[in-house]
Amino acid sequence: MTSHFADRLYEAVKSKKTCLTVGLDPVYNRLPAAIRNHRQMNDEFDVAAAVDAIFDFCTQTMRIVAPMVPAIKMNIAFFERYFWEGIETYYALISEAEDLGLEIIGDVKRGDIGHTAESYALAHLENPELTGLEDTLVSDAITVNGYFGTDGIEPFAKTATEQGKGLFVLVRTSNPSATDIQDFADSKGVKMYEKVAEIVNQIADKPERIGTSGYSNVGMVVGGTSAQETSVLRNKYPKSWILVPGYGSQGASATDCIKFCKPDGTGALINASRSIIYAYEKPQYKEQFGDDWKRCIEQAVIDAKVDLANAMQTKL
Amino acid sequence: MTSHFADRLYEAVKSKKTCLTVGLDPVYNRLPAAIRNHRQMNDEFDVAAAVDAIFDFCTQTMRIVAPMVPAIKMNIAFFERYFWEGIETYYALISEAEDLGLEIIGDVKRGDIGHTAESYALAHLENPELTGLEDTLVSDAITVNGYFGTDGIEPFAKTATEQGKGLFVLVRTSNPSATDIQDFADSKGVKMYEKVAEIVNQIADKPERIGTSGYSNVGMVVGGTSAQETSVLRNKYPKSWILVPGYGSQGASATDCIKFCKPDGTGALINASRSIIYAYEKPQYKEQFGDDWKRCIEQAVIDAKVDLANAMQTKL
Repeated sequence: MTSHFADRLYEAVKSKKTCLTVGLDPVYNRLPAAIRNHRQMNDEFDVAAAVDAIFDFCTQTMRIVAPMVPAIKMNIAFFERYFWEGIETYYALISEAEDLGLEIIGDVKRGDIGHTAESYALAHLENPELTGLEDTLVSDAITVNGYFGTDGIEPFAKTATEQGKGLFVLVRTSNPSATDIQDFADSKGVKMYEKVAEIVNQIADKPERIGTSGYSNVGMVVGGTSAQETSVLRNKYPKSWILVPGYGSQGASATDCIKFCKPDGTGALINASRSIIYAYEKPQYKEQFGDDWKRCIEQAVIDAKVDLANAMQTKL
Repeated sequence: MTSHFADRLYEAVKSKKTCLTVGLDPVYNRLPAAIRNHRQMNDEFDVAAAVDAIFDFCTQTMRIVAPMVPAIKMNIAFFERYFWEGIETYYALISEAEDLGLEIIGDVKRGDIGHTAESYALAHLENPELTGLEDTLVSDAITVNGYFGTDGIEPFAKTATEQGKGLFVLVRTSNPSATDIQDFADSKGVKMYEKVAEIVNQIADKPERIGTSGYSNVGMVVGGTSAQETSVLRNKYPKSWILVPGYGSQGASATDCIKFCKPDGTGALINASRSIIYAYEKPQYKEQFGDDWKRCIEQAVIDAKVDLANAMQTKL
């Protein structure tokens, strides 16, 4: 394992032969019945039962996907809703993912300035050296909201660079109303998200942040649903890893998403969350594998990888 | 206590006769020696000792300020850096603040869409009905980052409205580089922050969100350092509470900040954090009160209230 996040990601994408990442957005009521029932404590209103079931589900899911994908994206909101119990579970899963050799993106979307940003960075980008938290590990990278400008990105970038970690700054999100703010344009037609991308690049493109792979540890988040327009960012910022949400359930196609990859297949992480982790809800997998929810998830990952590989083939 | 956040705030500002709020940004190394030492466990690298000292300091500080100010602002980053132990402490302090009759603003700056936003809202705007978390209370309002547009604000506003809680959406922040993004202007000269304010107002100005005080439970964050220009938002959006950070340590004057208040003294919350909670570090208070850190904090609150009241007098 190299110490530079961008290089670790590069190696992982090359070795797993895919830019697909799996997002963990665990919702108790959607967990497989086998997980919810096996302890006879199927109670969504009991915090211990809920986080225990979520931990079990996520761990088993990660074991299935770990040999097939370079990274997972953990959405902290689904843990934070169980208060400190959920946060403890979030970090416990990071340790499990680390053991499985996965790169871990903490989808936390934090954003602030100065000491506050430094404190968030301590929570998410630096393994704690605190008595009582000896074995706690943080994620390999996090998502950050850049609405504060440079002041809100630099403190995170500083800690990330010192710790061999990474960032993905929100540039263009995949939701419908993103256009109102992110496509807001100046008199020359430059859009807000293009301006944010430029600010991110000024921070990303510094020698101390570029790894031997040629990529920076400071990347961008650009939704797959806007790929038709935003994929020009790929060539404009060749040193940036681009995290692409929206593939699968949110409606972006493989052809759209793959636009963010370079010809060698690196440079983008195409994330699918619900379409993979809840594959057992889909008739196509249910009919084939019955109650074997793990086999459903495994097949969904294989199908997504093939889908992306085919799209890549067509593009080249 | 009425069930509408904006009305509770209105009554609290009226009864405490000030728009001053105190921000809790606790940093272990800056806590009074008396707090750090009294258990002979002065160890910033021991998580239990650190959060215990922080809990003690914040509780005592809240007892001092509670009779004098309508609300406190708790910055979650300073708790999150102690992982789940810090998060448990954050919620424990919310319960203490509630007992003291303070309105509690959770300065969490979360931001996301759909189910993710709903999950964050469950963590911060709805008291949990979960076995194992029976007595846990959430804050009265939170700060939210609006970079996603309407999709990123509505889910929070929905939960807040249902629960008698509130929001403050980041419109214009107080840091220097905020200008790069938030002052980005379209061909008509409309700036990004003005556009965001308009989007926030569309959500805020709905009948179900307006209390008997005439204010909405969905407000804005506008930094005091940009008041010269941004205080026009006050008249433009008369139904919005405006949370104004930057008074005190960050350099905004009382005259600047008070621009966001209406003539009756309501409509804005002027927040001071470090200049009050670390008052005992300042020569002016140290000389007067020696090691009595509580008396220093008390006097700093009194001085800030007088400073704001004088500025208000001059304005009228």
